[in-house]
Amino acid sequence: MRAMWEVLLMLFLGVFPNTIGSTKPYKSNSELNHCHCLSWRVAVEANNVKGWRTVPTQCLHYIEHYMLGGQYESDLEMIMDQISNYIDDIVLTANSSGMNAWILDVDDTCISNLLYYRGKHFGCNPYDPMGFKTWAMRGACPAVPTVLKMFEKLVENGFKVFLLTGRDEETLGQTTMYNLHNEGFIGYERGQSAVLFKSAMRKQLVEQGYRIWGNVGDQWSDLAGDCLGEKTFKLPNPMYCVP
Amino acid sequence: MRAMWEVLLMLFLGVFPNTIGSTKPYKSNSELNHCHCLSWRVAVEANNVKGWRTVPTQCLHYIEHYMLGGQYESDLEMIMDQISNYIDDIVLTANSSGMNAWILDVDDTCISNLLYYRGKHFGCNPYDPMGFKTWAMRGACPAVPTVLKMFEKLVENGFKVFLLTGRDEETLGQTTMYNLHNEGFIGYERGQSAVLFKSAMRKQLVEQGYRIWGNVGDQWSDLAGDCLGEKTFKLPNPMYCVP
Repeated sequence: MRAMWEVLLMLFLGVFPNTIGSTKPYKSNSELNHCHCLSWRVAVEANNVKGWRTVPTQCLHYIEHYMLGGQYESDLEMIMDQISNYIDDIVLTANSSGMNAWILDVDDTCISNLLYYRGKHFGCNPYDPMGFKTWAMRGACPAVPTVLKMFEKLVENGFKVFLLTGRDEETLGQTTMYNLHNEGFIGYERGQSAVLFKSAMRKQLVEQGYRIWGNVGDQWSDLAGDCLGEKTFKLPNPMYCVP
Repeated sequence: MRAMWEVLLMLFLGVFPNTIGSTKPYKSNSELNHCHCLSWRVAVEANNVKGWRTVPTQCLHYIEHYMLGGQYESDLEMIMDQISNYIDDIVLTANSSGMNAWILDVDDTCISNLLYYRGKHFGCNPYDPMGFKTWAMRGACPAVPTVLKMFEKLVENGFKVFLLTGRDEETLGQTTMYNLHNEGFIGYERGQSAVLFKSAMRKQLVEQGYRIWGNVGDQWSDLAGDCLGEKTFKLPNPMYCVP
């Protein structure tokens, strides 16, 4: 019996080496890697790591687990709660001029490319423009469910929702419209020109008299430039960076 | 012997209930709380949660562990690496006009209030202006070591480093200067007026001909307004928000 308790004790010491017999936290290599990759991800989200090209290879499994293990959805929900409260506040105060606008990005905001990036080592592989085009041509990007809910709330509340995308209109415009429609994005306003950059598009809307209440995107470049809108929201994306 | 193996097996199943016998990740209450509080912290760092007043009470232990368990330091180091690389790039290209400026915030950028906030449940308690003043009057805020290193690198490389603080000059100016000096912040430029807000101070510097290369602070309000600088860096602070 005593031997068994000794085994159990050793087992516990093995399982919880960091909490017993040490005040200073000892970190294993895998914990150090987790710690480092979490710092990298947060630095990306806070725009402290700028213009990066690929996910650090040591963070492949961390990002895989982040995207598929529930934290990504939790992060999205947290932001959608903030946006939802903000929408409720606006609806109470804004007059219904018909000129109340919101801007949403498309890729990895409205619709998800996670299935594609899964095949690209979650962004550890370098950007592959042809590969992405082939994927986008399939028109099979699933909706990001929490963003679709927010989109529906905006449309219900009378906002004009503009979807702005960097996708090439000539080759991908039709497919992207079908994709968005099939996934439930119905009732948005069409941007007049894909030639204009997002910042110029927003400026045009403001010149037309629109008030941009919110601007939502997964890239910091979506939230830079002119006429950003009253509030901006950065959705998580640790897989790629559009400079 | 068989009984002991059964005990060991049960023990393992108890310790790792999520990894055995289930493909879909099952999360315990404590894991869900961790997941939620991590989402909250990242949303604060990405400026998605704006103008918050206190840390959610359910996140007290999460934030305590974040601040004391090594992740906070790791996050700081990640950002300091980015800044350091950026400094190296500037030094190679900038001419030495003597008008190359950097802006650093003081509280929880140069010097730390962690010891104070430890007594305030890491920000779960509401802001206590008198309590904070009493703490600041002691002039005992320790340097943030990684920021001090960056500060020294900036001074060595000939940048004019301006420390901007929202602290009241009349009551805390002298003490804060001693505190900074004692902690190794030597050779910075003194802001001319504490009456001006940070944004107005930066504007004045630009009007005087300074080029602001970088702007570093732990609050999004440090990084808003006019003349932000070429690049801004948001240091982590999940304990309080200055609107």
